[in-house]
Amino acid sequence: MRIRVINPNTTASMTTLIEVSARAVAGPGVVVEAVTPAMGPASIESHYDEALAVPGLLAEIIAGERDGADGHVIACFGDPGLDAAREIASGPVVGIAEAAMHAATLVGRGFSVVTTLGRTAGRAHDLARRYTATGACKGVHACEIPVLELETDPTVLPRVVALARHALDHDGSDVIVLGCAGMAGLCADVSRRVGVPVIDGVTAATLLVQSLVTLGLGTSKRDEYAPPLVKAYSGRLSDFMQPGRDGSRQGGVRAKEGLV
Amino acid sequence: MRIRVINPNTTASMTTLIEVSARAVAGPGVVVEAVTPAMGPASIESHYDEALAVPGLLAEIIAGERDGADGHVIACFGDPGLDAAREIASGPVVGIAEAAMHAATLVGRGFSVVTTLGRTAGRAHDLARRYTATGACKGVHACEIPVLELETDPTVLPRVVALARHALDHDGSDVIVLGCAGMAGLCADVSRRVGVPVIDGVTAATLLVQSLVTLGLGTSKRDEYAPPLVKAYSGRLSDFMQPGRDGSRQGGVRAKEGLV
Amino acid sequence: MRIRVINPNTTASMTTLIEVSARAVAGPGVVVEAVTPAMGPASIESHYDEALAVPGLLAEIIAGERDGADGHVIACFGDPGLDAAREIASGPVVGIAEAAMHAATLVGRGFSVVTTLGRTAGRAHDLARRYTATGACKGVHACEIPVLELETDPTVLPRVVALARHALDHDGSDVIVLGCAGMAGLCADVSRRVGVPVIDGVTAATLLVQSLVTLGLGTSKRDEYAPPLVKAYSGRLSDFMQPGRDGSRQGGVRAKEGLV
Amino acid sequence: MRIRVINPNTTASMTTLIEVSARAVAGPGVVVEAVTPAMGPASIESHYDEALAVPGLLAEIIAGERDGADGHVIACFGDPGLDAAREIASGPVVGIAEAAMHAATLVGRGFSVVTTLGRTAGRAHDLARRYTATGACKGVHACEIPVLELETDPTVLPRVVALARHALDHDGSDVIVLGCAGMAGLCADVSRRVGVPVIDGVTAATLLVQSLVTLGLGTSKRDEYAPPLVKAYSGRLSDFMQPGRDGSRQGGVRAKEGLV
Amino acid sequence: MRIRVINPNTTASMTTLIEVSARAVAGPGVVVEAVTPAMGPASIESHYDEALAVPGLLAEIIAGERDGADGHVIACFGDPGLDAAREIASGPVVGIAEAAMHAATLVGRGFSVVTTLGRTAGRAHDLARRYTATGACKGVHACEIPVLELETDPTVLPRVVALARHALDHDGSDVIVLGCAGMAGLCADVSRRVGVPVIDGVTAATLLVQSLVTLGLGTSKRDEYAPPLVKAYSGRLSDFMQPGRDGSRQGGVRAKEGLV
Amino acid sequence: MRIRVINPNTTASMTTLIEVSARAVAGPGVVVEAVTPAMGPASIESHYDEALAVPGLLAEIIAGERDGADGHVIACFGDPGLDAAREIASGPVVGIAEAAMHAATLVGRGFSVVTTLGRTAGRAHDLARRYTATGACKGVHACEIPVLELETDPTVLPRVVALARHALDHDGSDVIVLGCAGMAGLCADVSRRVGVPVIDGVTAATLLVQSLVTLGLGTSKRDEYAPPLVKAYSGRLSDFMQPGRDGSRQGGVRAKEGLV
Repeated sequence: MRIRVINPNTTASMTTLIEVSARAVAGPGVVVEAVTPAMGPASIESHYDEALAVPGLLAEIIAGERDGADGHVIACFGDPGLDAAREIASGPVVGIAEAAMHAATLVGRGFSVVTTLGRTAGRAHDLARRYTATGACKGVHACEIPVLELETDPTVLPRVVALARHALDHDGSDVIVLGCAGMAGLCADVSRRVGVPVIDGVTAATLLVQSLVTLGLGTSKRDEYAPPLVKAYSGRLSDFMQPGRDGSRQGGVRAKEGLV
Repeated sequence: MRIRVINPNTTASMTTLIEVSARAVAGPGVVVEAVTPAMGPASIESHYDEALAVPGLLAEIIAGERDGADGHVIACFGDPGLDAAREIASGPVVGIAEAAMHAATLVGRGFSVVTTLGRTAGRAHDLARRYTATGACKGVHACEIPVLELETDPTVLPRVVALARHALDHDGSDVIVLGCAGMAGLCADVSRRVGVPVIDGVTAATLLVQSLVTLGLGTSKRDEYAPPLVKAYSGRLSDFMQPGRDGSRQGGVRAKEGLV
Repeated sequence: MRIRVINPNTTASMTTLIEVSARAVAGPGVVVEAVTPAMGPASIESHYDEALAVPGLLAEIIAGERDGADGHVIACFGDPGLDAAREIASGPVVGIAEAAMHAATLVGRGFSVVTTLGRTAGRAHDLARRYTATGACKGVHACEIPVLELETDPTVLPRVVALARHALDHDGSDVIVLGCAGMAGLCADVSRRVGVPVIDGVTAATLLVQSLVTLGLGTSKRDEYAPPLVKAYSGRLSDFMQPGRDGSRQGGVRAKEGLV
Repeated sequence: MRIRVINPNTTASMTTLIEVSARAVAGPGVVVEAVTPAMGPASIESHYDEALAVPGLLAEIIAGERDGADGHVIACFGDPGLDAAREIASGPVVGIAEAAMHAATLVGRGFSVVTTLGRTAGRAHDLARRYTATGACKGVHACEIPVLELETDPTVLPRVVALARHALDHDGSDVIVLGCAGMAGLCADVSRRVGVPVIDGVTAATLLVQSLVTLGLGTSKRDEYAPPLVKAYSGRLSDFMQPGRDGSRQGGVRAKEGLV
Repeated sequence: MRIRVINPNTTASMTTLIEVSARAVAGPGVVVEAVTPAMGPASIESHYDEALAVPGLLAEIIAGERDGADGHVIACFGDPGLDAAREIASGPVVGIAEAAMHAATLVGRGFSVVTTLGRTAGRAHDLARRYTATGACKGVHACEIPVLELETDPTVLPRVVALARHALDHDGSDVIVLGCAGMAGLCADVSRRVGVPVIDGVTAATLLVQSLVTLGLGTSKRDEYAPPLVKAYSGRLSDFMQPGRDGSRQGGVRAKEGLV
Repeated sequence: MRIRVINPNTTASMTTLIEVSARAVAGPGVVVEAVTPAMGPASIESHYDEALAVPGLLAEIIAGERDGADGHVIACFGDPGLDAAREIASGPVVGIAEAAMHAATLVGRGFSVVTTLGRTAGRAHDLARRYTATGACKGVHACEIPVLELETDPTVLPRVVALARHALDHDGSDVIVLGCAGMAGLCADVSRRVGVPVIDGVTAATLLVQSLVTLGLGTSKRDEYAPPLVKAYSGRLSDFMQPGRDGSRQGGVRAKEGLV
């Protein structure tokens, strides 16, 4: 089984971190490959960044499908481009916010998200509303550390631990969800210190995709996630195209050589 | 007052149609300019199309802000890129689904959406859930006419009328919302034939933006819609950047020369 | 175009204030007329006041329809009698809470209401639930200044500013909605001081009605908002009647001479 | 114990019917008195009718409080004026839609409302949303018989029975709520024929008020339902006033002699 | 009329307290009998306790039906086994949380629950979501006094009063619901001290069942609450069986001699 | 890793079927053991059956914890006893409805449940409301085949296929969830015939538990799912007890020898 984990930003060191995390949990015989898009923002900290990350992400989904990947992980907590990716993938596609929030509901009664910047809290709430029942997400808390400083700032761990403790008390929650792929490495340490389950979406999503592939489940191609209709794209995005329903792989996608 | 109406797809004839509709309702002294992005899909009929339309759309928002536009309309019923556009705009930004659904709630008790392809119905429901109270949108019905055939297919009007009548009866609704910018020209005819208010988002959004500008209301720059942080973008999207909080225009955006 | 703005309370000085605000934003050629009902409470600060304001308000809707008004604004933040007014109006009818809350969702991610008395907060929450999606209204805060003291109390502006700042911080909101028609005059000052969009419903509703009339949209007469059936009214309200479906104006209303 | 059941319309024969129903279930020692307001519509079949029924209804609440009634029933399925009545009552006030919907959730998993005119269905849905959890009300069905014909039209029973059967099958419900005080007399017959619990709000509300009084529970006077502030009312409604917090009866209401 | 009030825990002194409360409000001619199950936990303070209380509770429902009881009260605030009990009962079955929450919505705008242990707060929220409309329950507060200490701890009353006052202020509520059958005796004292309606579910449920029986309403036997299918039960629970649809009493239940 | 899959009914042949399904997907080195409780109903087709299944199920959770199982699956689509099981388990506990519904949201936009008896549809809707966001579950359809006939009735496959097709068309869904553990063997066949992802909860839950254990995630022991307080249980259930917080295994459970 081959799972592609796409880091939607263009910072390669973060891709490496993500790959290490994902590989650490994948089952025997599962090949995990993390990739960095050829275009897009260095980090994703706004709706604007997220929007500009999606074309590069989709190109990676297309490349993965072409190369026979069995499933895809979108490794940014905003789950950018998830619906679009599902249209062009035959295998399963899972976002890390989706995976983490689902997992959180399985091991507790209510979770708090501990994330990077406060300006992304609204997106986290939107995703919680999409993925979970009303009331499952009890709060979103920001440590105000920019994404790319997570790897280098030595105060990250104590600040995240302190914020997690505050969140548990303030929200009355019993599980912590880490709100950024760049926090994947903190998971075990934070959990040990705060004494509740702490969930990192990268590992959770990798195992969810592995499970779905094991179950033989791909993305439904009935109606909304059917392959997009074939049409022209213009300008710099002109080599994005899809063969749609007449493509060679059922429900799949084929792209011009050399895309991205 | 200058309002820019952005057709997020790259089909110029559709931009013309949209401009005619918008200008027909704008107040005296309001300059309406419709624009076509330099990159993206010929029409938007999937999440994938929508995702690929957003970079070109954002470039137009940036261009409009640079050129002193007072407000922006996003003239595709999926309201692509709305949150990202709000981050980089100082003036108001309104999507046509948002405008049409709001207007519908002001003149009736429940609306039905009549749209193009069934595969976009899920998106319409998602938007209704975002913009309106539970229960306001009573149904979404597709005539299965692709967007670019709306201009040329002579059966469009009778089919839309028949579908609108069916929707009113089936859903118990009392207002019809047209679910595609390409249907703007049908509005008066459909209304006359079905006998209820029929709402086109292009004209509704144009007047909403005009009203917000008149009221002196721009997009809030507190927290989530504050200008994005400055950072590097890679590859084909490398000329997307924003000066952020230190830009020359408060809450605004400045871009490299020659973007798009 | 003629728009009638009805102040549902019987305090004429407040009608004057409302008229000044509405006229300041209306487009060229739009005649705005504010009116005071002939019966009802001096101010509306309870469900009881609101209920007793409605007959006088409805008499004004009837009078406006008879005199050819194109649309109506209900200028009290509780939007009293909105559904009933829509049944007897052929043109659009918009309440100021409805208009303000809609506008707030267009320029930010979440709004707080700053209102007069705490006992009206429940009504504001009810209206937010009716007009907006779950979560759009993040809080309602009362300055505990009675409606009729808004015009004369010199501490109103600083108290409203302080409360708005508190609301933004406490609720995590980014837009302020003023919760009383009597606050219309404060809008620009409060916005300047707190640095976010501040919305007054009187001006917002006037422009919404102007826009709906421009779009040719009146109240749907299918089902729920169809003209009421003709029947007898007794006692002091015996001159309220409606010709209903057989009236001379389609979807309209005709009343006895001398009503009110 | 004295319970006043207010028929909010002005048709005395309907008041008689309501009184007979209510008295049939009241406990020993409970005096039930049904009253007809001195002003308002002959029947309530629209928002307009409902709005014009409220002043007369409130006058009856005031009269009842003055005369020492222990509790009040509002015997119209739209529950007109419920919040206003609670402000001016010290004892409990229950609407018949509220009572019937609550009772329905106690004896089944989902109820359907069978009502008079289709144009009132929206109001029934609004009330269900206010009184019950999401999903409890599975449908509202109208027999299109005007309220005042319920007493005389010999086809009422078979039509209501047929509609109830249709509702159970169509909605997958297991309880029927009768959607009009004028249907009170049909309850036992319909239940016998359709084989599920059928609930009439007049009797349900009478027993709820009786129970609340037995429990010593009146309307909370904290915040929203506190007595309205004292102020002037104009025109025909000028004799509506309330002594408010300084009145002689705690949480109560005192009115001018000769009101209504 | 005979009403059985089942204390789902096995502490007889609590059954006595419950019986005294219930009898104090029941109408003339109503026989109230409180019973203690033959198996189960001494108190219910967790989902685990609740689950283990249900078989004993159901045996009491079966015994009550066999002996001709007209209705049943489940006198634990978690309303354990409510759906199962309704399947095997022909008369009405009401839980005390259900009754108390319904009553609370009739006498105020929003209630707070004051309960025993914090770990049960989630269950109270779940029940509020099931029984009442969104927003009716404004908070759940725990005094952290174990159930069986309510009878003996002399600090209970002042602590509950203090917590109720805190809840009203913190939540902006206007009614208090007592969250444990063991608090039934505190109701009047707490209400007198905090000045708002305070609701005990035992008395509220007793009167609701009395009212439903008076109205001739039993549990609907259509679909979900129909008698369970006849089948074998194993092990210690092997004498639980039901005659189902072919039983001697319509919609009723018959059990082996000597059950429990 | 050792995962225990508990069949909450007492039919051993069904346990065998469940074990075969679960083992077929478990990863290398994962020991899956399916068990049958020593007490309870032969099948679960009502709330009553479900309630009586829970004590035996909880005894198996206790036994599994004592014997060092790493996680637990509850293999009945009603997810009986889930909250109680989480209180007494240190490892994760997942229900099959929970697992199947989560998986369904990952591979499509909306799912339909195809289940056994119509009387269980309400429970499926309740669980969908608990586990998924509003609107994810688009319908529940019953084939009216009793649970124990699933293994032997040769018409099961064609009937389930026909019902799944009907559900997709009627509900506008794109994924099918099988609503009974006894349908586990049908999954691949139904999927092949209807052409959309079809999800069996037994396999989905087994892999979810495996994934959670791999991630080091157990049930949160903060607040609601903390071990139950130690107390006495009476009658036939007297050997149910828990050492609670002072037990030998952190967050775990120890039981008397010979339980069950």
